[in-house]
Amino acid sequence: MYKAAGIFILGITLWSLPAPEGMEAQAWHLFAIFITTILSVVFRVFSILVASILGLVIAIFTQTLSPEAAFSGFSNNIVLLIVMAFLIAKSVVKSGLGIRIALQLIMRFGKTALGLAYSLLATDLLIAPAFPSNTARSGLLFPIVYSVAKANGSDPELGTEKKLGSYLMFTSMAGIGLSSSLWLTAMAVNPVGAAIVANYGITINFSNWLLAASLPTIVAAVILPWVLLKVYPPTLKITPDAPGYAKEQLGRMGNMSKDEKITLAVFILLIIAWALSDILGLDRTAIAFLGLALLLLTGVYTPADIRKEGEALITMIWFAILFSMSMALYNMGFMNYVGVLIAKEIDGFSEPAAFFLLVFFYVVFHYLFVSQTAHLLALFGVFLFAGVDLGLHVAGLAYMLLFATNYFSVITPQGSSCNVLYISSGYIRVDEVYKYGGLLTLLFFIIYNTIGLGWVVWVFSF
Amino acid sequence: MYKAAGIFILGITLWSLPAPEGMEAQAWHLFAIFITTILSVVFRVFSILVASILGLVIAIFTQTLSPEAAFSGFSNNIVLLIVMAFLIAKSVVKSGLGIRIALQLIMRFGKTALGLAYSLLATDLLIAPAFPSNTARSGLLFPIVYSVAKANGSDPELGTEKKLGSYLMFTSMAGIGLSSSLWLTAMAVNPVGAAIVANYGITINFSNWLLAASLPTIVAAVILPWVLLKVYPPTLKITPDAPGYAKEQLGRMGNMSKDEKITLAVFILLIIAWALSDILGLDRTAIAFLGLALLLLTGVYTPADIRKEGEALITMIWFAILFSMSMALYNMGFMNYVGVLIAKEIDGFSEPAAFFLLVFFYVVFHYLFVSQTAHLLALFGVFLFAGVDLGLHVAGLAYMLLFATNYFSVITPQGSSCNVLYISSGYIRVDEVYKYGGLLTLLFFIIYNTIGLGWVVWVFSF
Repeated sequence: MYKAAGIFILGITLWSLPAPEGMEAQAWHLFAIFITTILSVVFRVFSILVASILGLVIAIFTQTLSPEAAFSGFSNNIVLLIVMAFLIAKSVVKSGLGIRIALQLIMRFGKTALGLAYSLLATDLLIAPAFPSNTARSGLLFPIVYSVAKANGSDPELGTEKKLGSYLMFTSMAGIGLSSSLWLTAMAVNPVGAAIVANYGITINFSNWLLAASLPTIVAAVILPWVLLKVYPPTLKITPDAPGYAKEQLGRMGNMSKDEKITLAVFILLIIAWALSDILGLDRTAIAFLGLALLLLTGVYTPADIRKEGEALITMIWFAILFSMSMALYNMGFMNYVGVLIAKEIDGFSEPAAFFLLVFFYVVFHYLFVSQTAHLLALFGVFLFAGVDLGLHVAGLAYMLLFATNYFSVITPQGSSCNVLYISSGYIRVDEVYKYGGLLTLLFFIIYNTIGLGWVVWVFSF
Repeated sequence: MYKAAGIFILGITLWSLPAPEGMEAQAWHLFAIFITTILSVVFRVFSILVASILGLVIAIFTQTLSPEAAFSGFSNNIVLLIVMAFLIAKSVVKSGLGIRIALQLIMRFGKTALGLAYSLLATDLLIAPAFPSNTARSGLLFPIVYSVAKANGSDPELGTEKKLGSYLMFTSMAGIGLSSSLWLTAMAVNPVGAAIVANYGITINFSNWLLAASLPTIVAAVILPWVLLKVYPPTLKITPDAPGYAKEQLGRMGNMSKDEKITLAVFILLIIAWALSDILGLDRTAIAFLGLALLLLTGVYTPADIRKEGEALITMIWFAILFSMSMALYNMGFMNYVGVLIAKEIDGFSEPAAFFLLVFFYVVFHYLFVSQTAHLLALFGVFLFAGVDLGLHVAGLAYMLLFATNYFSVITPQGSSCNVLYISSGYIRVDEVYKYGGLLTLLFFIIYNTIGLGWVVWVFSF
């Protein structure tokens, strides 16, 4: 209650302050509502769902936003794409296809803890493009990691979590940040960021995102399991049982079922259609709708399955609302205004220093955020504009901020909803996330902003 | 498969036909897609979800609709209102408030079968304004009717369904059509119809709908239990146990719980705010969002509850898509075109004959529809325009068609999703629905188009 009162007082105070010179009162008021909404999530005053709905209602009742503008996010093609992808991902899980792919990788590469970690990471990296909900992906990966750990006798209930499970869990948890960095469609807000970047005349699509992300992500993915093996080692480094376990599971699964085959066909169709959507002139969201229709038509997925997926509706509601607000704030010129201010502050530094400071502060800011989505919606546009205003390399900065939005997920336990399952398993302690998650985030920051930045600038010079 | 092939051939045939003279090819193509979508639902080729998604994808891929136009329904305030109301209704059920209200009515009025029928009907009529999902309302009423029937020893498993249960079930099932007629917010498509009517400069809001519907609906509600008592009688006409049963249940429930009190407060707040929304200039959908936020904030309803409500997402998807298509068809002038054609056909008749023929054909058409929503979306605009073109009383015709959209729900077993629960209980046979449902629909048609029409015309003459 104190917290709720505090956040309302903060909101009213911000609202009452005069708008900075040159900014319209409406833009300032929307900022007051928006930042209070975000802070109420950061400080756990409200859930992201309640915070968003309250923000929406206040914005409409105070006539800061028209109902049309406030609701517009619900029909945004990106928001609808996420909803469809969420449901399609569930059918990949339901059909058994996701687990089969994972088991096959483990069967081939799982003889050592390191090999096992790499195979889980590879699984994630490969399935990621069809999973714009990284939370859904964590839901698929987690039971596999969990089963592999247990099959090797590593179980928190027996006090043997450090034997293998903790190591694999942490690798997979941090790995989701990397797999999300690799593909435009591997994380909900990647396309949102791309849409913001489009305002600067830079087209980020499925192909050039993959190209830009490939080198730094592969380097980070190669280093991640190895670094954790040193700083957060499993006591069992050799896991001879894992391939056998996977083989046994595959044997039990038998040949691919009809459902798996259909899902695989739809899965491949979607990836091809998404990759070629620009050339064929097909709307990406309509492609996703088609994918869902095919899964429903073939009975692989049923309305009864969707009935259990109210989570997709929850995600749609808060995501659409924050999307509407952020876009309205952008359209009112707020981002530009603040971007110019930050740019002035950083103006004294040399260009490279300004660049790294911008990205570094953007990353450090994530200590305050519960949601990667909220972080991107609140700060990405501002930081990008600041950089643009300073004359920094736009595509380079855009990608560095976008990749950061994904890899900084492990900086805190609540940095991403993906972390929750891993931590709730009992294999990873909360204080370990702050320690090793912070270390990994710093490591990723360095890799992406050296090798990665060079690569992006080089690729975009053609 | 044959059915699916048939419907696709029909769709392609319609598409290939030249557009009637004076109609743009785009409008004709959208009609071909839309009517094929509706027919595929009517003939049970696809579920309404799959049919809508396929229609959407085809409309976008053929460039008949832009993605923006095709997705626009998702951010429509009416569609969002339905989604919010769906969730709020669930929390009324969850809190126990709905059942308490019902039990109290039964305790007071339930000594005879007729009194019991009236009390169930009154319950429905009173709670209806806060339940734009009549399906959700049927979900609340059904378990009460069921419990009351069983408490009186009427049970299909014992072969005693005719003792009391069949009669009460049929009354309640048909009653939902009447309670939906009474309030603008008692049925999902009522506001959609009102929005279409607004195109003719007639404002239908919460208050004037209630006024217009009050007299004929009360007459129909008074007659309904009495008519069924004659044609579909229970063998047990006196039910001395019902008040006791209700009292016992209420005793078991004890005093109102905190959750019930909160829900009641939110419930009352919503009804007041909706009723005053025009005066206060508050967006009705934002009010519904606020209601949900209050229920979530107070913990009466939780995100975990919403997680089970994927049905709301399913409803939103097909409803938004059909809404987008229907509105696009309207905007392209299709409704006007067909309305003029029908008007020409009916032109020879006198004005009163033309009026009743229009409403009668509109009602009879419902034999072909599974969904009241689809019926309204496909035909309401066309029939209304036909009437307008003939110079009939616009408000009178609009209301007669809107009321019909509600009361014709019992004309067939599949005429409304509300019927499904009642029929699945084993108390009512399918052939009985065709017989007595048809009879009741005819009765309602007569009541609304005599007393009701006179009343509406008189009320609107001021």
